[in-house]
Amino acid sequence: MTNFEGSTVATDVSPLAPKSVPDMPPIAGVRLATAAAGIKYRDRTDVLLAVLAPGTTVAGVFTQSKCPSAPVEWCRANLKGGKSSGAKVRALVVNSGNANAFTGKTGREACRFTAKIAARAIGCAPADVFLASTGVIGEPLNANAFDGVMEGMVAAARGAAWLDAARAIMTTDTFPKVATASAKIGKATVTINGIAKGAGMIAPDMATMLSFVFTDAPIGARALQSLLREGVTDSFNAVTIDGDTSTSDTLLAFATGAASDAPRITRATDPRLKNFRAAFARVLGSLAEQVARDGEGARKLVEITVEGAKSKASARRIALSVANSPLVKTAIAGEDANWGRVVMAVGKAGEPADRDRLSIWFNGIRVAHKGARDPAYDEAAVSQTMKRDTIALKITLGLGRGTDRVLTCDLTKEYVAINGDYRS
Amino acid sequence: MTNFEGSTVATDVSPLAPKSVPDMPPIAGVRLATAAAGIKYRDRTDVLLAVLAPGTTVAGVFTQSKCPSAPVEWCRANLKGGKSSGAKVRALVVNSGNANAFTGKTGREACRFTAKIAARAIGCAPADVFLASTGVIGEPLNANAFDGVMEGMVAAARGAAWLDAARAIMTTDTFPKVATASAKIGKATVTINGIAKGAGMIAPDMATMLSFVFTDAPIGARALQSLLREGVTDSFNAVTIDGDTSTSDTLLAFATGAASDAPRITRATDPRLKNFRAAFARVLGSLAEQVARDGEGARKLVEITVEGAKSKASARRIALSVANSPLVKTAIAGEDANWGRVVMAVGKAGEPADRDRLSIWFNGIRVAHKGARDPAYDEAAVSQTMKRDTIALKITLGLGRGTDRVLTCDLTKEYVAINGDYRS
Repeated sequence: MTNFEGSTVATDVSPLAPKSVPDMPPIAGVRLATAAAGIKYRDRTDVLLAVLAPGTTVAGVFTQSKCPSAPVEWCRANLKGGKSSGAKVRALVVNSGNANAFTGKTGREACRFTAKIAARAIGCAPADVFLASTGVIGEPLNANAFDGVMEGMVAAARGAAWLDAARAIMTTDTFPKVATASAKIGKATVTINGIAKGAGMIAPDMATMLSFVFTDAPIGARALQSLLREGVTDSFNAVTIDGDTSTSDTLLAFATGAASDAPRITRATDPRLKNFRAAFARVLGSLAEQVARDGEGARKLVEITVEGAKSKASARRIALSVANSPLVKTAIAGEDANWGRVVMAVGKAGEPADRDRLSIWFNGIRVAHKGARDPAYDEAAVSQTMKRDTIALKITLGLGRGTDRVLTCDLTKEYVAINGDYRS
Repeated sequence: MTNFEGSTVATDVSPLAPKSVPDMPPIAGVRLATAAAGIKYRDRTDVLLAVLAPGTTVAGVFTQSKCPSAPVEWCRANLKGGKSSGAKVRALVVNSGNANAFTGKTGREACRFTAKIAARAIGCAPADVFLASTGVIGEPLNANAFDGVMEGMVAAARGAAWLDAARAIMTTDTFPKVATASAKIGKATVTINGIAKGAGMIAPDMATMLSFVFTDAPIGARALQSLLREGVTDSFNAVTIDGDTSTSDTLLAFATGAASDAPRITRATDPRLKNFRAAFARVLGSLAEQVARDGEGARKLVEITVEGAKSKASARRIALSVANSPLVKTAIAGEDANWGRVVMAVGKAGEPADRDRLSIWFNGIRVAHKGARDPAYDEAAVSQTMKRDTIALKITLGLGRGTDRVLTCDLTKEYVAINGDYRS
């Protein structure tokens, strides 16, 4: 799904990183700036400001955690406030280094203060400022740090700083995540750019990690919200690193409407959205795949496809049970085509499954068939394919027509090392 | 809960192993024998035979996997067959090295053959033989290997080989797991002995791993089944190592009735069971705790207590969400009192929780209180306590009176190493 062209990324990154990054065109109505506010990191940027043209609409999906971060609550309230007429937005402020989660009253005050200074610098209402934070949980966020950089960021904001933007929101990510696509709406060409940060604490049934997608298409807030909910299902919600769910997961989409000749779209069912919808899905899919490729300590990208389930939902639950199984993930790290553990993970999903109809493939090689080891099992061929850095694991249940696909990565000693040291 | 006396265990075991093992008394009506059948391992025993006196009753709980092993199906069928009059049993045959799971028709035949040769050697019906297997999944089990050792085992079976029995069923376990207790029923003293094997693929909502508990008390099969279901809830079903569920998990209880002067008990509600019930719970609890202590790669035993939940069931789900979180488990491995990740895991459980009422303790030190870091947080004291090999993590929700407790262990690089190499 990722298809990158352009400059090559640095070499100290995940072995699964895309070999190149795309040239990110500017988006009319979006200006970006980054700064080093010293929230936690030294010698790197940790704040991103996006200044958005008047009239920009916004949509969002968020963590399903019962203990969300203060910025998640801030964004939810803003989206709700703007519901009747389409949510309004003029700015996005994101920081890395501190998640402003489980910080009580101080956390809410940090949100109010950050929105206030951004609004003052831009000249809008604080409710038109959207916020996201990622990093340490449970430590107070010193929002005063933004005060010193905000005016300068507004002045410096420009259209082309997409890679810088993606870098400023990284935590344990090893490479910045960007994606772009163009699409036709009527006769007009519009652009969609997205950035994301991931690494750990990634699991579905929520927005997952931080991701921000921008377009110059003129799309009403309600239609944009529908497109986003639809697009997240088979992208971010189909990725799991460790089954853990952040308190801060946020995916926001912004439509500036500044593409001069595109018709305004107010309903997600508008047939003129067909090409845009596919392009939007490609951008979300690419960002989600990059998150899986940068799973903490990951050495292998694992694509799990389940076919023949009772339903798509059942296939999804089985695929996630396999994707989140520590025993499956460690086996893949050990380059062991341990289909016995796959059976175990299918069995524990609690979904309809008949052991004696189950077949399992690794990279197209069938290793198990109808309830037992495949008679044609070729140990050498299987061993060889498990050395690849991309593993396609296919499971057929033979019960129905439900199919689904999720992405994950292997579980390595490096995952344990990263998470035994880093206080996130 | 473990309270051991007697001989000291070997030194190449888990650092969390009990310092000593109890003297295991014989149980009237139970004779044990072990043998090396060469199923997978060299130079060690891998088959256990228990010969049980005529009239012995049996009860069982099993994995909830939709893809259970052939021996699990065998035992379930035997229990069902004997349901009306109380299930009958004359022998238990357990092997390690091969789980006989996902082995199709061959697997069922291996069960039939094993039961047949055991029945022939003992002089009973094959349906009176119960079976369990643990080890590699998906490889055919060569039951012929048992043929050469069965007659000899029946001849050699004796009353006191409990540690040998526990050793014969080990896979990646680093120490044999045994527990014993005595209890009064009326004026009679009866004995309860248990053995277990655990290590990986341990998670609740099933019987979990292999465990066999024996008593000389005369308890009818239905009453025994009730006692077992009741006892498993807060013992084996409250332990999780990696959230993975074996296809083979089996817990069987056997009551020989050979304690000469004990009254026969036919109902689990019989008040004369009070003392026995408590002793039975102690044996199951001790075995379950030993399983947690021998979690693959474990360096720390973690007890998670949730208080103030809406219900016990809600407290259990929250405790398991924390216990199964890779980010919490790696933090504990890194001796980091990362309560932010605890909040994350509470939040993702999907149960009622109010961030601003949450408090969290590590080994009695409160680190978070009412939605924020505890103002009295003493980093040095917290760092010190995290070095201990037992971590008591307490979470209070402040919502209701539901309380529960589960046991787990940390997630270390050794877990990844063990499971990246061993094909289970």
